[in-house]
Amino acid sequence: MTKPLLIGIAGLGTVGAGVANLLRNNAGLIAARAGRPIAVTAVSSRDRNKDRGVPLAGLRWYEDAVALAIDPGVDVVVEAIGGSEGSARALVEAALAAGKPVVTANKALLAIHGRELAALAERRGATLAFEAAVAGGIPAIKALREGFSGNAIRRVAGILNGTCNYILTEMRLRGLQFAEVLREAQKLGYAEADPSFDIDGVDAAHKLAILAALAFNRPVAFDEVHVEGIRDISAVDIAMAEALGFRIKLLGLAERGEAGISARVHPCMVPLTSPIARVDGVFNAVVAEGDAVGRVMLEGRGAGGGPTASAVVADLIDIARERHTPVWGAEQSALSNTPAVPMHRHRGAYYLRLMVLDRPGVIADVTAVLRDASISLESMLQRGRAPGEAVPVVLTTHECEEAAMQAAMTRLASLDSVLEKPALIRIETL
Amino acid sequence: MTKPLLIGIAGLGTVGAGVANLLRNNAGLIAARAGRPIAVTAVSSRDRNKDRGVPLAGLRWYEDAVALAIDPGVDVVVEAIGGSEGSARALVEAALAAGKPVVTANKALLAIHGRELAALAERRGATLAFEAAVAGGIPAIKALREGFSGNAIRRVAGILNGTCNYILTEMRLRGLQFAEVLREAQKLGYAEADPSFDIDGVDAAHKLAILAALAFNRPVAFDEVHVEGIRDISAVDIAMAEALGFRIKLLGLAERGEAGISARVHPCMVPLTSPIARVDGVFNAVVAEGDAVGRVMLEGRGAGGGPTASAVVADLIDIARERHTPVWGAEQSALSNTPAVPMHRHRGAYYLRLMVLDRPGVIADVTAVLRDASISLESMLQRGRAPGEAVPVVLTTHECEEAAMQAAMTRLASLDSVLEKPALIRIETL
Repeated sequence: MTKPLLIGIAGLGTVGAGVANLLRNNAGLIAARAGRPIAVTAVSSRDRNKDRGVPLAGLRWYEDAVALAIDPGVDVVVEAIGGSEGSARALVEAALAAGKPVVTANKALLAIHGRELAALAERRGATLAFEAAVAGGIPAIKALREGFSGNAIRRVAGILNGTCNYILTEMRLRGLQFAEVLREAQKLGYAEADPSFDIDGVDAAHKLAILAALAFNRPVAFDEVHVEGIRDISAVDIAMAEALGFRIKLLGLAERGEAGISARVHPCMVPLTSPIARVDGVFNAVVAEGDAVGRVMLEGRGAGGGPTASAVVADLIDIARERHTPVWGAEQSALSNTPAVPMHRHRGAYYLRLMVLDRPGVIADVTAVLRDASISLESMLQRGRAPGEAVPVVLTTHECEEAAMQAAMTRLASLDSVLEKPALIRIETL
Repeated sequence: MTKPLLIGIAGLGTVGAGVANLLRNNAGLIAARAGRPIAVTAVSSRDRNKDRGVPLAGLRWYEDAVALAIDPGVDVVVEAIGGSEGSARALVEAALAAGKPVVTANKALLAIHGRELAALAERRGATLAFEAAVAGGIPAIKALREGFSGNAIRRVAGILNGTCNYILTEMRLRGLQFAEVLREAQKLGYAEADPSFDIDGVDAAHKLAILAALAFNRPVAFDEVHVEGIRDISAVDIAMAEALGFRIKLLGLAERGEAGISARVHPCMVPLTSPIARVDGVFNAVVAEGDAVGRVMLEGRGAGGGPTASAVVADLIDIARERHTPVWGAEQSALSNTPAVPMHRHRGAYYLRLMVLDRPGVIADVTAVLRDASISLESMLQRGRAPGEAVPVVLTTHECEEAAMQAAMTRLASLDSVLEKPALIRIETL
């Protein structure tokens, strides 16, 4: 065995402690696979005395993460602090500037500052690895960047946020409303006290921005991702989806079309026959479509100490073996500048649900609005009769442009007989 | 861009031609991802004049594959001849002996001679890459060997043969018998004229032997794989499986238990709720269970020119980038010698179907045999009544040892009231 690879871990929360423990528990097999031992030599955290189940004896301890990054005895820095700014960012910049490989699980940092960090990493010849940033222990980044590297990727899509998938699954299985399930998920620790990062789609959008950059070899562009969350999904839509042969999932989708790259996170109706429709609960899935490989799906746990540590340690073993891949899959000079397609240019099929007064002529009014917008209907479903009261009417459309649909939505909302803001969910086949 | 990586392709069938075409069609993006162009410079095939849709102009052509391997202008050899002996083996040995990287899709060669080839590759410092040998374009080898490298793997399992999965799927969807569907699959080109390699489980066993070696870092040991195919699966068992909440799949499973490593390929009953139960038709899937990552499933097309070429080109890009991984995931000196567990020591639950005379006392006779073998019943199902005639009786057991079950099977077959050889299918939860 050659000299150990010496690791500094900044942040000893779930991720940092999980990495330290996995490196210790599986030290023998990790050394065999890495060709050399991998050992933690230094850690950084705010409170030295907090017990995290990680024995700190024999490790150098730093209060300041940047000091850990430039410790000459640290070969590789694991950033497990989190957040796109502050000490996480400073640490990663300092380590890369010092030419030191960095492994991080920090999707916010990558999505927001990945463009400059990748350029810095390349200038300094340092690896910036982030398998754990997307879909936990699922090797989605390795698959996209190395496994499918011979393919022109048409689309990458995924269930990228376990909290949302858990909430949507529980709503469906138990017929509950969003707010009820969210409260429960918060009690169980599946959702944060401030859940907006998850349920408004921001976390999924960070991950999608990273996947899109890898799939299309272009610098990460979080600002170009259209983001909608799941707050407005209602129990009635979930039931209607099932009746129509669909399931509602919060997906991130990045596609290459003739006009360029589109990237969006929003609730989708996916056919029940689609493998991704069956990915339930806290599980994540990533689907890639390549011109040679066809469609491949990867499915597993997207979060938690074990899966995240698994991905971080895989990155460390790649570094120990000197297996290097440029951040966005190609050198900066070889990245593409394919333009982004804005959301209003998106074309697709739609599910619309209107709460309307059950009285003659309403359907005629609604369908006239769609006809005027050149939107053609694929199906219409009205459940139950309640003359003079509110009933749901569900419409699905053929493919049309988002801008036309949004204009029609505004007109529909203004009809006298339409009683609530209409619900719109995009239909995706994958 | 630096100097191109020059490829010699031996064999211009579906795989070889697919690789040549993918390298040409996606040349630009492949060069960006590889950091240098990858170009075919020489080919070898039996008949120079056969049109394979690959322009041969400007390429050196060899009748003798070994001559291609030692051509000093060839940097990397792609072996696309197939078969575990003959020129495929000679070519791979010659190239590795010359210190040249080899990429192959040849699972038979790897399963049968992989032990010596891996040792040779290591001695000569040459990469031997074989992503395409298992599960087509699904990056199963990369996932196991690199993606899950931080994990102690408990089990790897998969649907590894598309022909068998297609036949089982058609039998179920259309209620047909094995022989009928096989004939049809042969007409459609989904099964070979001599189908035994596929339907008797040999092909799946080659692939499982490779996965087991990677998962447990031990030299490939094809002889240790227990192999059964799908010839004896009957339409009645497929229907009974559904009634019991199972689906029948031909799985390869390799597990690490207290006594050592077991590896087996045979038809399995898997719960309908299990994701792998839904992988239908010609699709393949690989499930890995690691101590940190939990269970991850990868699903996609397991065969065909496109998926296979995708995997071969990914290996070529790894070689261009100098990303190297030892054949079994660790150097020869670090491989484990965990013993193999023979099939008669396997423990599991079983499905048994007996065709019995519908007369009093039969069930008592059958259950007495199981009781005497200390096999405890989980359920019993008798469908229909036909006094004095043959009716199916289905039993499922709790976990017991294979040896006890086989002994009980022999005794059951000898009962007067049991009219046919009993059917036995192992139940697997994954």
